[in-house]
Amino acid sequence: MTTITIDSHQHVELIEITTQVRAAIRSSGISVGLAVVYTPHTTAAITINENADPDVARDMVVTLSKLVPFDDHYRHAEGNSAAHVKSTLVGASETLIIHDGAPVLGTWQGLYFCEFDGPRRRQVHIKVIGA
Amino acid sequence: MTTITIDSHQHVELIEITTQVRAAIRSSGISVGLAVVYTPHTTAAITINENADPDVARDMVVTLSKLVPFDDHYRHAEGNSAAHVKSTLVGASETLIIHDGAPVLGTWQGLYFCEFDGPRRRQVHIKVIGA
Amino acid sequence: MTTITIDSHQHVELIEITTQVRAAIRSSGISVGLAVVYTPHTTAAITINENADPDVARDMVVTLSKLVPFDDHYRHAEGNSAAHVKSTLVGASETLIIHDGAPVLGTWQGLYFCEFDGPRRRQVHIKVIGA
Repeated sequence: MTTITIDSHQHVELIEITTQVRAAIRSSGISVGLAVVYTPHTTAAITINENADPDVARDMVVTLSKLVPFDDHYRHAEGNSAAHVKSTLVGASETLIIHDGAPVLGTWQGLYFCEFDGPRRRQVHIKVIGA
Repeated sequence: MTTITIDSHQHVELIEITTQVRAAIRSSGISVGLAVVYTPHTTAAITINENADPDVARDMVVTLSKLVPFDDHYRHAEGNSAAHVKSTLVGASETLIIHDGAPVLGTWQGLYFCEFDGPRRRQVHIKVIGA
Repeated sequence: MTTITIDSHQHVELIEITTQVRAAIRSSGISVGLAVVYTPHTTAAITINENADPDVARDMVVTLSKLVPFDDHYRHAEGNSAAHVKSTLVGASETLIIHDGAPVLGTWQGLYFCEFDGPRRRQVHIKVIGA
């Protein structure tokens, strides 16, 4: 298992981690199998989406925050319930297919760490298993 | 594969299953690999979120039911379309990384069975594979 | 890895792929393990839901498009930001447990390719690994 550290700088932010995930997969020495990209935080998530136009990530941030408002009569005393709900909607992990030592990604696909309660120092675990 | 049975008691409810999932992983005898926690129901889901303050799960229930109202001109005759949509948004499974015979979870992470059309008797499958 | 091709015919559409996924798993020759069903597109997704009443898929399409409107002051110039957000909410893949050479699905569960920016020609990858 490889663990990478990410520093977020915004309250809600998508940070691309494709390069680090590719490196972790390569360094595992496994050429065919699966990789799980997992965040151990309950106010963050992992997603796959377009990495060509940065406006896609920006529209994602705005739309998710409209769907799940920051203030909405939540009871959780820490005041970050919106971040917990977004985390469950997007999900704590993604599973990738590995071929020739690299993830099988579409032309426009990149991996993102989703910060929903930043800025914070965060972690992402990558585990590769062979077929 | 291990199957656990869960009895839900509310219409919409998050029920923590971390202890049962840990036990299933331990009993597999596999110390390093992946585990898939999967529910075979189409009006339920599996998620990972905070298990310290029960208000997080309560806020999740309220917010998901606001996002996807119980009545909204649905056509499905059984009247539980909201539950089907919530199931797709949250997802039927979670994949965990296994290390030292235990899931790699963050400090605040627990696993939840999400009931969206209860109360009912439900099942969750846990499958562990070694690295 | 098996790749299947799907032609969508609507702007937003759920297309059942259970038969093709079962065939890919069977042809892998692996009887116990995991299968990942993955779409390499950023305006599409994979989900598991009821395949008995087609109104469930129809209600899903309508409800997702209400949740994430097609036009909403998005910046992404291609004009399909709603499709990217839906893709992240539903997710690019599903992971299945394989037993006796077949996916462990509930009575009402089927696998769907979710088109959010059609009509288009699309792909789905299926990778099976043994336990």
